[in-house]
Amino acid sequence: MTVESGTRRNGVDLEAVGGLVRAVTDDATSAQTTWAAHVTWKDAFASEARVRTFAPTASDEPPAMGGGDTAANPVEQLLSALGNCLAVGYAANASVAGITIDALTIDVRGDIDLRVFLGVAEGHAGFDSITADVTLLSEAPREAVEALHAKVLSSSPVGHTLGSAVPVDVRLAS
Amino acid sequence: MTVESGTRRNGVDLEAVGGLVRAVTDDATSAQTTWAAHVTWKDAFASEARVRTFAPTASDEPPAMGGGDTAANPVEQLLSALGNCLAVGYAANASVAGITIDALTIDVRGDIDLRVFLGVAEGHAGFDSITADVTLLSEAPREAVEALHAKVLSSSPVGHTLGSAVPVDVRLAS
Repeated sequence: MTVESGTRRNGVDLEAVGGLVRAVTDDATSAQTTWAAHVTWKDAFASEARVRTFAPTASDEPPAMGGGDTAANPVEQLLSALGNCLAVGYAANASVAGITIDALTIDVRGDIDLRVFLGVAEGHAGFDSITADVTLLSEAPREAVEALHAKVLSSSPVGHTLGSAVPVDVRLAS
Repeated sequence: MTVESGTRRNGVDLEAVGGLVRAVTDDATSAQTTWAAHVTWKDAFASEARVRTFAPTASDEPPAMGGGDTAANPVEQLLSALGNCLAVGYAANASVAGITIDALTIDVRGDIDLRVFLGVAEGHAGFDSITADVTLLSEAPREAVEALHAKVLSSSPVGHTLGSAVPVDVRLAS
């Protein structure tokens, strides 16, 4: 992706995004994508995840969870993924809508009752709920920013994955 | 966390984990935890997430998505979080069960139809399904490893978050 490749807004290459939209409109099968991550356990609660050719990202638990405290833990990584996904959504949709973003921060929080993870209760081990507080600075009219917000909510891959019951099949190799 | 702090298996401090289990058994309110991540948009589809005092982790989209390809994207981060969470689950529960893990890898995959994200269709923008293929090497009896696997599935915070419809409230500051 080079600066010469097309018109940009918020740094987003509008021609590249437009081309992607046309491609999936013309051929729905091109919209079918598969994503992957490869995790290797290291020691205790430390592991690392590899994605494509990027350097592995570390994972660990805080001392209060009995971990070595060397990196964000998996539930924090999940909240990070949501915030990053929303950021892409605002950047992409703002750019298409002609809105310039001056600054954007997203604070994501969620509560977990650890008893299920720790084996002292049964039921839902995950987040009870998740909130994301978005601060978007722009000179665009409030109405346009609210329409942008609605568009992001209706189209966030990570947001919809968390907000829906997605089949998760964890298979143990024999 | 020091090596002297207690008996270890798979590197896991069994006394620390046992203490945590006792604490939440004695006082359920101590199991109520809040986690957070703070995301800052950088430019185009690049952002970064801060968790506690760790260095920020980068996020971007691949060139095929119109991104700068500097880091794993949010949906790959979500799959990474699942794999890392399962790794903690196997390590913790194996250690408590007296199972020594020789090696553990988890390959996570999921499919997304990009049309909703790209605004050319409505509906579910997230993963249709997610699979995790677990390879766990251990000299423990197969039956014990399968019981461990069942325990991990019943207690994974990220696994349960993805497998359930969790309320996600994204709020735009006024």
